[in-house]
Amino acid sequence: MEQYFVKETINSNNYQITDPETFKHVAKVLRHKTGDVIYLVDTTESLFAATIKNVDQEQNLIETELEKMTTASSEMPVDVTVACSLSKKDKIEWITQKSTELGAKKIIFFDSKYSIMNWKKNVVEKKLLRLQEIAKNAAQQSKRRIIPEVIYIDSLQKLIDYKAESSLVAYEESAKQGEISLLAQTLAKTPKSVLCAFGPEGGFAPEEIDFLNQNDFLSVGLGPRIMRAETAPMYFLSVLSYKYELTVK
Amino acid sequence: MEQYFVKETINSNNYQITDPETFKHVAKVLRHKTGDVIYLVDTTESLFAATIKNVDQEQNLIETELEKMTTASSEMPVDVTVACSLSKKDKIEWITQKSTELGAKKIIFFDSKYSIMNWKKNVVEKKLLRLQEIAKNAAQQSKRRIIPEVIYIDSLQKLIDYKAESSLVAYEESAKQGEISLLAQTLAKTPKSVLCAFGPEGGFAPEEIDFLNQNDFLSVGLGPRIMRAETAPMYFLSVLSYKYELTVK
Repeated sequence: MEQYFVKETINSNNYQITDPETFKHVAKVLRHKTGDVIYLVDTTESLFAATIKNVDQEQNLIETELEKMTTASSEMPVDVTVACSLSKKDKIEWITQKSTELGAKKIIFFDSKYSIMNWKKNVVEKKLLRLQEIAKNAAQQSKRRIIPEVIYIDSLQKLIDYKAESSLVAYEESAKQGEISLLAQTLAKTPKSVLCAFGPEGGFAPEEIDFLNQNDFLSVGLGPRIMRAETAPMYFLSVLSYKYELTVK
Repeated sequence: MEQYFVKETINSNNYQITDPETFKHVAKVLRHKTGDVIYLVDTTESLFAATIKNVDQEQNLIETELEKMTTASSEMPVDVTVACSLSKKDKIEWITQKSTELGAKKIIFFDSKYSIMNWKKNVVEKKLLRLQEIAKNAAQQSKRRIIPEVIYIDSLQKLIDYKAESSLVAYEESAKQGEISLLAQTLAKTPKSVLCAFGPEGGFAPEEIDFLNQNDFLSVGLGPRIMRAETAPMYFLSVLSYKYELTVK
């Protein structure tokens, strides 16, 4: 059964779906009828089973009766941000979709020295809207309780504003020098929030790494193989899920 | 510096590159000249720095002088196989590329009940050649010591022939029921080889899970979020790398 986000707090046993996009998907695309059940998630991250009572094709609304679910949250117990150097359209769309599936709370794209792209000021809003839409769809499909926020910053310097309790930078040179334990050491401290920055295909410039290190970003290796720019964040998110969601007890 | 595989065992300090594809890439695409250094990996997984002595454009060969490197292997200490239900061309190409980057030794595609595709007998060879080429390129780019083998089997039953010391199946229902520790328990035993089977978007049929379970495939959950069919194998491989390559002291 599919899940939709509603943009308000639900305090009643009944709910009218009026959001045009959700209405269209439920009533027109999937052609749900009275008696069918869908899931709704509200702004407090609560999950409800919504039984359809009436599909009003004239007023474009759906009346539902709700049952609050006690299912455990699908959100990671740690707030995870992935910050990725800007790349081609298909890659950043892919990073957005997969990072959402894998549990990121925030997805930041930033300009760096060897980025192969940058965004002109006048396209930022439109591009973010598109990525935010991808994140919403992936969040619904993967049964998240929140939609990750997609953010664009036009310089690496501004990444400092988003620092987490533990801030990291994936650095190939660290991996080459055999650095294999800093990520595990960091995760063992169970920080409340973690951010990891990932460079472009060409890597970070040494002065960018220096800048991040000076601002308490720890350089970590992610193993002995060279990963493409879009693969490393997936590795990182998978590891965090394993560490915090699959190895307790 | 880029790396190429050579299809023989190197026992000398000199090596002539005659493979047409490697010659073309080194001499024509990247236009390497005498004095440039590239890496070669032979069939014993040894890595050599190869200094170009002569690029013979008439005979299409490159003479090199070798130095054997003592760099630690980039191969996982565990033999990992991912077995994925057949899917669309772009998805299986993507799975092949990413699984190679993430360290898989074997990549198996199989037909299952809810697979959205199957391959006709007369296209299997051609399709595997294409996937094997993708694996080779990804292996060179990620600096692997081997090229993962890509295999196609036309039924889930035949997967039994590929069983590893620990064989697993990623099962959404296990995750839904809150199963969170079997993967970690399995990995804690440090098996020499691990295989994990991943179903199609529509999931495995219950009788397929029964069949796998009866053949000692353990059903494991991969966390509380629903991952797309192509994301789950990446999660799995990332976790194995973390467990065996980043958390040892």
